[in-house]
Amino acid sequence: MTADPRLAKLSLNQRTTQRWSVREAVDGCVRAGIPAIGLWREPVAEIGVPAAAKLVADAGLRVSSLCRGGFLTADGEHARLEALADNRRAIDEAAGLGTDCLVLVVGGLPPGSRDLPGARQRVADALAELAPYAGERGVRLALEPLHPMYCADRAVLSTLGQALDLAEAFPTEQVGVVVDTFHVWWDPDVWRQIARAGARIASFQVCDFLTPLPADVLLGRGMMGDGHIDFPPLRRAVEAAGYVGDTEVEIFNAEVWATDPDRVLATMAARYVELVLAD
Amino acid sequence: MTADPRLAKLSLNQRTTQRWSVREAVDGCVRAGIPAIGLWREPVAEIGVPAAAKLVADAGLRVSSLCRGGFLTADGEHARLEALADNRRAIDEAAGLGTDCLVLVVGGLPPGSRDLPGARQRVADALAELAPYAGERGVRLALEPLHPMYCADRAVLSTLGQALDLAEAFPTEQVGVVVDTFHVWWDPDVWRQIARAGARIASFQVCDFLTPLPADVLLGRGMMGDGHIDFPPLRRAVEAAGYVGDTEVEIFNAEVWATDPDRVLATMAARYVELVLAD
Repeated sequence: MTADPRLAKLSLNQRTTQRWSVREAVDGCVRAGIPAIGLWREPVAEIGVPAAAKLVADAGLRVSSLCRGGFLTADGEHARLEALADNRRAIDEAAGLGTDCLVLVVGGLPPGSRDLPGARQRVADALAELAPYAGERGVRLALEPLHPMYCADRAVLSTLGQALDLAEAFPTEQVGVVVDTFHVWWDPDVWRQIARAGARIASFQVCDFLTPLPADVLLGRGMMGDGHIDFPPLRRAVEAAGYVGDTEVEIFNAEVWATDPDRVLATMAARYVELVLAD
Repeated sequence: MTADPRLAKLSLNQRTTQRWSVREAVDGCVRAGIPAIGLWREPVAEIGVPAAAKLVADAGLRVSSLCRGGFLTADGEHARLEALADNRRAIDEAAGLGTDCLVLVVGGLPPGSRDLPGARQRVADALAELAPYAGERGVRLALEPLHPMYCADRAVLSTLGQALDLAEAFPTEQVGVVVDTFHVWWDPDVWRQIARAGARIASFQVCDFLTPLPADVLLGRGMMGDGHIDFPPLRRAVEAAGYVGDTEVEIFNAEVWATDPDRVLATMAARYVELVLAD
């Protein structure tokens, strides 16, 4: 493990190297000198929380976040109770992995529904049930506003301002927000909202916004430098708001996924230094 | 021409039937009992402004808008002057067609640029040059915020609030805004911004938001009822803000374009009554 001080706050979100198991991703981070990792529940489940936590700790890494809970918009009592139960499990897993940040993607409109205000209300209602449970376990629910193009099918939470309106109903240590460059870079109000967020910022994620968007728009997340985002102003704004945590690189991209993951980590570290840390 | 009073404020945006010439679109509107049309500059140019104006007038229709000016973000003096000249021509064409509404799509980031604030500033600067020219000719520049997924390559103007921030620097009769359901439906702040817009609303356009988005995301605009948007609350909000103009149906969609245009108009009129006018 190199000890390049410029990488001291860099984290690999596991989805960026999705073919790697937890063990492979941990080993890859060690080889690349990346000190933190954002884990996903599915690969963690393959080996169990205690084994994953031990792998990370033995390698001297830290867990910057767990992805993800959420999907709180389904209609009907059965679906509601099931979503709450699953989110409580996710909170327990985050606690077991030693991270205080559970990322929530809140969910889109239920199939056939056009009731956007109703879906948003169900998110608020579910948060009220989950936030104290999370707080008691030292975990913070990190509301991730997703790009508005995902409003119908993935997240009815579309802006940082909207996420803060929700979060501010709860103590700061229970509910925070994610600032993900891909999702917020276009927002003319983002500077004001990052400043407003302050200590609510639970995670800072970076990747670039590509055009043309690929056929599956979920995979439009690119390596920094391959798209349209100017990263340093966003990084500086998050720092100015008081955020001192890791910067996670989270890329969903078919080409990145087809590349040798060790090369992805090398590129990611170089681009991070060149394009995110740059003044 | 039927005289269904429910269609009294319905307008066909010409792009919805893009294979039709101006004459064909005018004739189609007459057959379908649609009293207004939103014209596009390219098909108008094929016959010239006076001939197009005469066709519309002779058919007893009105022109609800001209699409489109804008594309004001290019960098460099030559590109800037060319864009201003083209927009002055578009203003003259709108005046010649007897519409007071010229829709502006402001343009995206110049190729290779990541300077979003700079591009937005160039839009504001160009408006300052164009607004008085438009006002003198009885034409209003209608700023259209586009869905944030088009921020990089088509419009750095992404929300109604941002459009109003720009517009309010000018007299109401010189610069207004477009409310297009496809572009704004996801915005949690849209209700407040529509109320704020008031007399600035120069055009109300409807179409649905489809998922999955097609490979070319520009073509994700669907017939009302085929997607996720709940139209009546948006229509009522626009009416409550004082808008009394036409409702234009503007659909970019490969399947719609492949359909017999007369059938498209019949579907559009039926869906408008059922899904937009519904209480």
